[in-house]
Amino acid sequence: MTRTLASQTVDRVGETVLLKGWVNTRRDHGKIVFIDLRDRTGLLQVVARPELAEGLHAEDVIYVECSVAARPEKLVNPKLPTGTVEIQAAKIELISKAAELPFDMGSETLEVQLPTLLDHRSLSLRHPRVQDVFRVQAAVMAGFRTAAQNLGCTEVFVPTVAASATEGGAEVFKVDYYGHSAFMIQSPQLYKQMAVPMFERVFVVSHAYRAEPSVTTRHLSESIQMDCEIGFTDFSELLDSLEFVGWETLNHVQKTQKQTLAKFAVPPLKLAKKIPRLTMREAQSLIKERTGVDHTSEPDLMPEDEREICRWAAEEHASDLVTITHFPTSKRAFYTAPDLANPEYSLSYDLLFRGMEILSGSQRVSDYDELVKAIKDRGMDPDNFAMYLQAFRYGMPPEGGFSFGLERITMQLLQLANVREASLFPRDMERVDFRFHDTK
Amino acid sequence: MTRTLASQTVDRVGETVLLKGWVNTRRDHGKIVFIDLRDRTGLLQVVARPELAEGLHAEDVIYVECSVAARPEKLVNPKLPTGTVEIQAAKIELISKAAELPFDMGSETLEVQLPTLLDHRSLSLRHPRVQDVFRVQAAVMAGFRTAAQNLGCTEVFVPTVAASATEGGAEVFKVDYYGHSAFMIQSPQLYKQMAVPMFERVFVVSHAYRAEPSVTTRHLSESIQMDCEIGFTDFSELLDSLEFVGWETLNHVQKTQKQTLAKFAVPPLKLAKKIPRLTMREAQSLIKERTGVDHTSEPDLMPEDEREICRWAAEEHASDLVTITHFPTSKRAFYTAPDLANPEYSLSYDLLFRGMEILSGSQRVSDYDELVKAIKDRGMDPDNFAMYLQAFRYGMPPEGGFSFGLERITMQLLQLANVREASLFPRDMERVDFRFHDTK
Repeated sequence: MTRTLASQTVDRVGETVLLKGWVNTRRDHGKIVFIDLRDRTGLLQVVARPELAEGLHAEDVIYVECSVAARPEKLVNPKLPTGTVEIQAAKIELISKAAELPFDMGSETLEVQLPTLLDHRSLSLRHPRVQDVFRVQAAVMAGFRTAAQNLGCTEVFVPTVAASATEGGAEVFKVDYYGHSAFMIQSPQLYKQMAVPMFERVFVVSHAYRAEPSVTTRHLSESIQMDCEIGFTDFSELLDSLEFVGWETLNHVQKTQKQTLAKFAVPPLKLAKKIPRLTMREAQSLIKERTGVDHTSEPDLMPEDEREICRWAAEEHASDLVTITHFPTSKRAFYTAPDLANPEYSLSYDLLFRGMEILSGSQRVSDYDELVKAIKDRGMDPDNFAMYLQAFRYGMPPEGGFSFGLERITMQLLQLANVREASLFPRDMERVDFRFHDTK
Repeated sequence: MTRTLASQTVDRVGETVLLKGWVNTRRDHGKIVFIDLRDRTGLLQVVARPELAEGLHAEDVIYVECSVAARPEKLVNPKLPTGTVEIQAAKIELISKAAELPFDMGSETLEVQLPTLLDHRSLSLRHPRVQDVFRVQAAVMAGFRTAAQNLGCTEVFVPTVAASATEGGAEVFKVDYYGHSAFMIQSPQLYKQMAVPMFERVFVVSHAYRAEPSVTTRHLSESIQMDCEIGFTDFSELLDSLEFVGWETLNHVQKTQKQTLAKFAVPPLKLAKKIPRLTMREAQSLIKERTGVDHTSEPDLMPEDEREICRWAAEEHASDLVTITHFPTSKRAFYTAPDLANPEYSLSYDLLFRGMEILSGSQRVSDYDELVKAIKDRGMDPDNFAMYLQAFRYGMPPEGGFSFGLERITMQLLQLANVREASLFPRDMERVDFRFHDTK
């Protein structure tokens, strides 16, 4: 007998079918046992005689031969998509026996602390609530790709091992590369720029590695970036482009993940077609007006500022997104173009979403000599940028781009408390799968 | 004036337009200069008076204001999609000056040796022929994703930094991870298996890192893998699945990249709906029959065997693809399920394409105790596999999967001489962007 999926049973009333899945929960009611069977399409209640269910526990993999009947109307369970059918087991085969669980996997939410969740990640991933996080994440990626393609971008694949730590700072992972020193890229930034003379418009999905020596709720040591880089463009078109991709990505998630989003107690997305834009200084002034808190001389927005300006955007513009531009040139990477009207500030931007930055980018310095100077001005050696600079030596159009953080978007969409919940196997200073022990 | 792309000029006859792009070639004919302008849509011939083109050289970025006229029929150039229009420059603005080129970029193929091509990768990538390679590569990825989704797989994102070198061997890159030892994954294999209890069917696009101490035409130290992993399956369904994804991927490329493929002097793809299947031993016997070369006691297919069996598949089955199964258990990774009918051989498979393996995979050992034993039998420590084994401890269905090499498929599709030509910035033992110097 071929397998029937849980969700397909509603179309099989009157038939005998073979189900395959995990025991999500088991409830004993004397003469009958209720098994909630879980497969990739969801949960399904199976009724079994006790002798059939003997010894079955949560997370056992079972094959169930069973009959499908319609439930009497008053017994329909509106909470389950399969709540209209009654499944009576005729035979249950145990395929893979699960060890005793370290915590309850059967409740709707998973009531465990983050370290426990991660120490048992290969188990906790299968909880329906955790599945939902990564179902939404897959939709974020699909939405991004479609939007990037609609912007005219071609996908390219850039390396993650580099010869030098080109984005500066000590926050870089060193690799032993056949006895040579090499480094994991801090972002696909330089390589995606090098691909502009090829396709003009490219998109890249890449891992990014940051050896930040701190543990926060919104940083990962290894994360996934979704990047676009566009040639023959200007600042105004770049703003339109990033807002297009950001809006389309979130709209795709909202359209395709309605049911999943509804399970999380998060307000519906506010996707105003016109995303409000402010310079960083304007944002700081607005915050001062609204709250009395004076951050107008700070060189960057602080996390509380990001939250406040997002409240403003939601209240005044019905938008969960807001674009902030013109960060101080000195606070941005060397490849960021200064605003010629006021070179202290740069042609840079962040996209904020529900209180957090989910995107960053800028118009770039595209002139070779200026770029060499910018590198030297930061105390770096142009020789370490030889392959990067080569792209600019042989004719580079005005260009710019932007980069989304996949885990951060997922986190903000579902209002997760910690970005680690939005990473399948999060890496940080203290953990690679398991926490490092004090003895190395 | 907004920009007109090269390919759009055929619809703008009689208009004045603004073109933006690179000088692909420049030819001086006394009173007129011919400039082949290149943008992301291709090449376009621009006619200019010498004074407008003064000082312009190959790879300069220019903006051209020009008129578009229809060419007299006898002057139509059938070799260019824009060969029906005559473009007369009125004004040329130099946007970015290119340095003198180290080699000729204007000929149809790029007649330079591989080391030169790679030493100037940021330049050579923009050659139309090289662009085509990566346009085809993007289509391979798009075809794979669509096929994987049609197979019911959900996309997941797995880490690339791991706590131990879990697939064995010394061919692994070591990372300094906050003072701890960590390793770059040799493949996403273990993590994709760990995701099976989540979505049952997953696909993963991941970098894979192999510190192979050799330089060959078909190995890269960093490469891109396209993986599927499927739960509740068996060997026969796995063979159907890998052939479905392989066939659909190539068919997508053939359908969407017709013009690009035609530019490469490669025969049309032979995509028989039924892909021939042989066990490794059957393949060896067949080769002996056909060629007299006796490799029947070898433990694996050799490169020349792969080529010969592909010739057979093409000649006898009109198929550029052939599936080889049942490699010796001892030659495959520990997670490979042995064939219970003859445990010396495994439920493994390779997919060969035009003479080279482009896919590898197997039914997996899904029983926890057998898996622990398999790890120990290979002399490895199950403690190093704790997070992996956790997935199997708590109920794992029968499962299996497969993995495609993106660069190899691209190489074989276009019959490139070296896999490095199919990698944007190839990494090998001797090169990260540039070759390592003798002095480190």
